[in-house]
Amino acid sequence: MNAHEYASANADRFLSQLQDLLRIPSISTDPQRVADVQRAAQWVADDLRRIGMQRVDIMPTAGHPVVYAEWLGAEANAPTVLVYGHYDVQPAELEAGWTSDPFEPVIRDGRIYARGASDDKGQVFAHVKAAESLLATGSSPVNLKFLIEGEEEIGSPNLSRFIDEHLDLLRADVCVISDSGMARMDQPSIVYALRGLVGMELEVWGPAQDLHSGQYGGTVHNPAQALAEIIAALHNPDGSVAVPGFYDDVLPLADDERAELERTAFVEADWRKATGAPQPWGEAQFKLHERIGARPTLEINGMAGGFYGAGFKTVLPARAIAKISCRLVANQNPRHIYELVRDYVAMITPPTVRSELRLLQAGEPAFVDRNTPAMQAAITAYEQGWGKPPVFSREGGSIPVVADFNHKLRLPVILMGFGLNDDGAHGPNEHFSIEMFRRGIQTAIYFYEAIAKQQP
Amino acid sequence: MNAHEYASANADRFLSQLQDLLRIPSISTDPQRVADVQRAAQWVADDLRRIGMQRVDIMPTAGHPVVYAEWLGAEANAPTVLVYGHYDVQPAELEAGWTSDPFEPVIRDGRIYARGASDDKGQVFAHVKAAESLLATGSSPVNLKFLIEGEEEIGSPNLSRFIDEHLDLLRADVCVISDSGMARMDQPSIVYALRGLVGMELEVWGPAQDLHSGQYGGTVHNPAQALAEIIAALHNPDGSVAVPGFYDDVLPLADDERAELERTAFVEADWRKATGAPQPWGEAQFKLHERIGARPTLEINGMAGGFYGAGFKTVLPARAIAKISCRLVANQNPRHIYELVRDYVAMITPPTVRSELRLLQAGEPAFVDRNTPAMQAAITAYEQGWGKPPVFSREGGSIPVVADFNHKLRLPVILMGFGLNDDGAHGPNEHFSIEMFRRGIQTAIYFYEAIAKQQP
Repeated sequence: MNAHEYASANADRFLSQLQDLLRIPSISTDPQRVADVQRAAQWVADDLRRIGMQRVDIMPTAGHPVVYAEWLGAEANAPTVLVYGHYDVQPAELEAGWTSDPFEPVIRDGRIYARGASDDKGQVFAHVKAAESLLATGSSPVNLKFLIEGEEEIGSPNLSRFIDEHLDLLRADVCVISDSGMARMDQPSIVYALRGLVGMELEVWGPAQDLHSGQYGGTVHNPAQALAEIIAALHNPDGSVAVPGFYDDVLPLADDERAELERTAFVEADWRKATGAPQPWGEAQFKLHERIGARPTLEINGMAGGFYGAGFKTVLPARAIAKISCRLVANQNPRHIYELVRDYVAMITPPTVRSELRLLQAGEPAFVDRNTPAMQAAITAYEQGWGKPPVFSREGGSIPVVADFNHKLRLPVILMGFGLNDDGAHGPNEHFSIEMFRRGIQTAIYFYEAIAKQQP
Repeated sequence: MNAHEYASANADRFLSQLQDLLRIPSISTDPQRVADVQRAAQWVADDLRRIGMQRVDIMPTAGHPVVYAEWLGAEANAPTVLVYGHYDVQPAELEAGWTSDPFEPVIRDGRIYARGASDDKGQVFAHVKAAESLLATGSSPVNLKFLIEGEEEIGSPNLSRFIDEHLDLLRADVCVISDSGMARMDQPSIVYALRGLVGMELEVWGPAQDLHSGQYGGTVHNPAQALAEIIAALHNPDGSVAVPGFYDDVLPLADDERAELERTAFVEADWRKATGAPQPWGEAQFKLHERIGARPTLEINGMAGGFYGAGFKTVLPARAIAKISCRLVANQNPRHIYELVRDYVAMITPPTVRSELRLLQAGEPAFVDRNTPAMQAAITAYEQGWGKPPVFSREGGSIPVVADFNHKLRLPVILMGFGLNDDGAHGPNEHFSIEMFRRGIQTAIYFYEAIAKQQP
């Protein structure tokens, strides 16, 4: 039995194991879930040990731990593949619209529904099961290292330092990350650009405490209103971001790149189906897929102020807050963008209230060279796994650590996404196609095999 | 011992009783507090029975009950005074900035701190204790009726119908309401105008569910942003409300009225102290006290959308809501104003999102004739209670039922406020001056006496 046959023969067990991992609510941003995050790290480490990795460590950081594993038993001169992924997940509140408990996986219509199913437990687990298939059949042509962290969903605040402190440990020939998606199952695609991320919190305050809206309304600049006025001034009527200098460093789309991206264009009918929104919005001179992949954005992730529960309270709130994030493209610098937004907010805040824009997290955009041997191996792997060559695409999401793999470890990074764009990552009813999980395992094996053949 | 002496002799007991009433969290808007609201009604009814009212009933409505009490033992041809007040209170969350538990009254610096201390338990209880003082000394010169409801803080949705169904029961010669404030303790004032209120909820939605801000950001009109844009468009840069027609029916201030109001002008230094806001805001052509008393406003009482908890979540929210209220002045019609705001919101909502403005509550503004015998009695009462004649003022708050007393019961209404404007009603650390409570009881007794002398 070869590795591919082993993976097919064990498909049901692999799926059942994934369900066990999905039951652990490893929400990295939630202080109440520290023990669950730890439990997920332990679960992943246990499985890596069980499949025969030679060394498995749960390594502490200033935050949630990193799971590191290695198997260095390949033939002399065989290349080493570093697999990166994360075992932490986004928050998930049942009342946000989940049909079933986000931490009790349910299979419906060939999909597994649970928080983290696609992002990223399901995708990183495909590599673990690819490794198991190779090791169990004694056929791994590459050395394997796994770096599976627990803080990706909060911007990987401690991973950069972890890499700095473990440059030797993490040495490899190529890094592969499966934490992204493709538009359609019948057309494999390789992501070569990810957006960076700046997470911020804007607070506006005025009165020292909540006031009676009858007794003071009309004389006090309502902070909720002032926050709304500031937010409204962050975009121009044409959908572009109004912050001066925001687009200055954006790497423009080349014509050939635009043509290549056209092959994974977001059809408006699909966009409507996926979003349910009444009609598209944004920079009209860019197509939908370009707005997502090649243009930076400024998004209101949340806002709150005053009384918004059941009933009514005639309060004039003392303060209001908004969570704001920018998605950035090559060559934008997250800290510089934060400073631009901060200065603009300060400039447009009227003297009748006070405001502060705080930086919560920052991650660089990633831009992968499409002309490397590693990329050729990825193309071969998709051709074998899908029976069809992949196209190149840009993704709107962010994996801040990609820039570190590039710069610090000098590794070519392959973004080998096994998700679909409509998996509902970060939203309610996140799911992962069981067929994508199956093909992902096979394609990962093909990739390790192709990488091994390529090396001199 | 006359009634005034009785009130002085029993001041400590009266205060202790008020504390008992304040311990009951009778939050009318909160479905979890139905039993507490009921308990407050029972407490008030028990006390009214104890002080010797001849008939005391807890009368059901479609919502929280009304406490009705009467004592009709005055001499033949004596006038009947109807006292209106409310035993329900606004919500109070400890984390909104309360120094102590809002439902465990604490006395500091001559003030009693608790939710409802001033609005309205303390003020209506002053009348109950005035009645006790008269009945206990066998000296009441007027017949007394009490109508104490439990839904004032949610806009008295069932009181209008209750009045319709009990016109005979509520028949009286004058209605007195103590549910308002004065600017300073050393200058008594009589309120002759209250603002009306329209409470609304604005919902903006776009995508069918929360989306990943990386995967869709830049193509979907973010509902939180769209809500902010709509809110920002509700005011003009000069602080006036931008809704077309909003000011059309406003009764303008006459010159003599403006001069009278000048006597209770809100000094900017006091405004700064009371609000803590960096500087005043609003319609510059009107003074602070005019903006509050004589101008309608549109206020954001709360708004929420997306993720605003601890941490960060890169979500593109599916929906966002705002609670919005308008304070209205004579002669504005609440339902008409709602329609104007609704139509304007519909007009400015872009096709990239959907919106709905729902009417939650509506109450008419009140405007009291200053030239009535009842008003003369009130002036006399304040002169006796304070040793100083009162001035006339307008209040920014709302007591929607005043319009019903005027129109349905054809009663002159006297707004005999015993609160102070900086009592913190509706905000954290609401309090009531013990001296105002004492003077309130005495002034209420003087008022009943003055009314009795006036009648033919």
